[in-house]
Amino acid sequence: MDKPLLRALAGRPVTPAPIWLMRQAGRYSPEYRKVRARTVDFMTLCFTPELAAEITLQPVRRYAMDAAILFSDILTVPHALGREVRFEEGRGPRLEPLRNLKDLSRVDPSAVVARLGPVYETLQRVKAELAGGPTALIGFAGAPWTVASYMIEGGSSRDFAAAKALAYGSPVEFQSLIDILVEATAAHLIAQVEAGAEALQIFDSWAGVWPEADSRRWCLLPTAAIIRRVKAAHPLVPVILFPRGVGAMYEAFARESGADALSLDTTVPLAWARAHLQAHVPVQGNLDPLALLAGGEAMETRVRAILDAFGDAPFVFNLGHGVVPATPLEHVARLVALVRGA
Amino acid sequence: MDKPLLRALAGRPVTPAPIWLMRQAGRYSPEYRKVRARTVDFMTLCFTPELAAEITLQPVRRYAMDAAILFSDILTVPHALGREVRFEEGRGPRLEPLRNLKDLSRVDPSAVVARLGPVYETLQRVKAELAGGPTALIGFAGAPWTVASYMIEGGSSRDFAAAKALAYGSPVEFQSLIDILVEATAAHLIAQVEAGAEALQIFDSWAGVWPEADSRRWCLLPTAAIIRRVKAAHPLVPVILFPRGVGAMYEAFARESGADALSLDTTVPLAWARAHLQAHVPVQGNLDPLALLAGGEAMETRVRAILDAFGDAPFVFNLGHGVVPATPLEHVARLVALVRGA
Repeated sequence: MDKPLLRALAGRPVTPAPIWLMRQAGRYSPEYRKVRARTVDFMTLCFTPELAAEITLQPVRRYAMDAAILFSDILTVPHALGREVRFEEGRGPRLEPLRNLKDLSRVDPSAVVARLGPVYETLQRVKAELAGGPTALIGFAGAPWTVASYMIEGGSSRDFAAAKALAYGSPVEFQSLIDILVEATAAHLIAQVEAGAEALQIFDSWAGVWPEADSRRWCLLPTAAIIRRVKAAHPLVPVILFPRGVGAMYEAFARESGADALSLDTTVPLAWARAHLQAHVPVQGNLDPLALLAGGEAMETRVRAILDAFGDAPFVFNLGHGVVPATPLEHVARLVALVRGA
Repeated sequence: MDKPLLRALAGRPVTPAPIWLMRQAGRYSPEYRKVRARTVDFMTLCFTPELAAEITLQPVRRYAMDAAILFSDILTVPHALGREVRFEEGRGPRLEPLRNLKDLSRVDPSAVVARLGPVYETLQRVKAELAGGPTALIGFAGAPWTVASYMIEGGSSRDFAAAKALAYGSPVEFQSLIDILVEATAAHLIAQVEAGAEALQIFDSWAGVWPEADSRRWCLLPTAAIIRRVKAAHPLVPVILFPRGVGAMYEAFARESGADALSLDTTVPLAWARAHLQAHVPVQGNLDPLALLAGGEAMETRVRAILDAFGDAPFVFNLGHGVVPATPLEHVARLVALVRGA
């Protein structure tokens, strides 16, 4: 528990604030692109422990980040549920759209864990490399709604028309898909802890599209159910929740999800978050990835505003969304130095 | 001032609540598609008063909506500033991306109004048709940031990388573009009032992408400047502001923009909006357009929740975003009947 990230997530202010970045191991990095060039496809990379572990560790070596986050993808869960998942360069993920829940309802969550064995081996390798050091290891998964939206739409979506049509028109059937994802995701997160993850993050990247009551039903409650299952198995492992884009609903997620910390998107206003969110749970965030891309004074001003707002209470510095591929390496290095007081 | 919409916008509760829908004249309607089929392109339609007036009036005739909103587009302003704007079927708007502000800085806002003459003629025609009836006529424009984003990106965008790069990297230059848009937009809105608009709506459709300080600088302050100019010319004309996606920042827009009413997107939680927004200004919204598409119990439950939250204080029923093209006509008819207590 001497690791700075774990201290902050346990509710203790840490100075300087621990820092890691969503997509810190990714396309902006030459080391990553070099490894990526050696594999035929992205999913193979996720399921090759030697390479996935190497990628996970790259930003720790280059920037001494306070956390290594497992290199994987939220769509490994649908893959393990038997859905075809492909990644096409420049087009994002493509899944065979889900039209029928019958096949899925026969899937056993324990089979999901069996199929995701290489992910746990990746964590074990990374954990061994981090032994004795200050870097915490974060496991993760997608939240049920976000993963369901990819499964139904067959990829990313602008208005989630197909997924919302199912939720609005056939809520019982949609609930059964969400329930399957709750079980599979909880099992996957618990297995990650057992393979060495010291903290977990749940990404609800598309949470910000629902009216209040539906946000509660399809995002908040399923995520809370996952967190309860994880806590029943591993009471002390902190869970960070990232319900991106939920606006004023962030307060309900802070109070009712059971998450140990909330990751804030770029748009969450700082003084409001300080008063209404950080008063309940540690917060993480929320520099605009495009301010990191811009660098210079634009970045520095916004970093200082975030540190001024959150820095003297439990807080983890991060972005409001993932690092974008065009980000210069020296901007990341400068950001880390800034947060560490250089 | 006996028109229900104008009474609600003046801060008086109206029962039943007035209703109109964003994109109520649009692709879901067979009358619209029939008129649309007669014109070569969308911009020509916007600049043909006889046809634009006909389209504006269609939803008033079919559903007796409480407002007719001018049929036009937010990109008429960049067009009037001399930028090429085309609409490609299924791809949305395409503009020649703006790389240099020199040309723009020579544009006279009064030239903008001269070039938008057909829009004002449309309003005059509609106003004449509505004379003596209870239907209010709404004019509109895009907010500077949203319009600037289209001008810089050349169309719609997923992450606004080019527009944000300019704002973060060259804020003085970006401010000069915003200032030009403030002047042009204020002039356009004032001319709409003089042609018959009885209320105005400002659409900041892409407001929800900024950190707090930037949201204030690029969305809230420019919009407030437009509203001040409009009010200086026409103190009694109500202005509705739609800063879509700004989450907890909605409260700052309610208190600081000078808008007479706020249009709420789908994600704004109802009890929070009642306490923090409707306490300051009338609100409008916020049914999910995909709940309208779904119809039936899904729609009816959500309509009742909105009416229960907002109905006994100044309120205008609307969607949280525009009607989607696949929406069945009978769902719109049922929605109007529901709001009117049938």
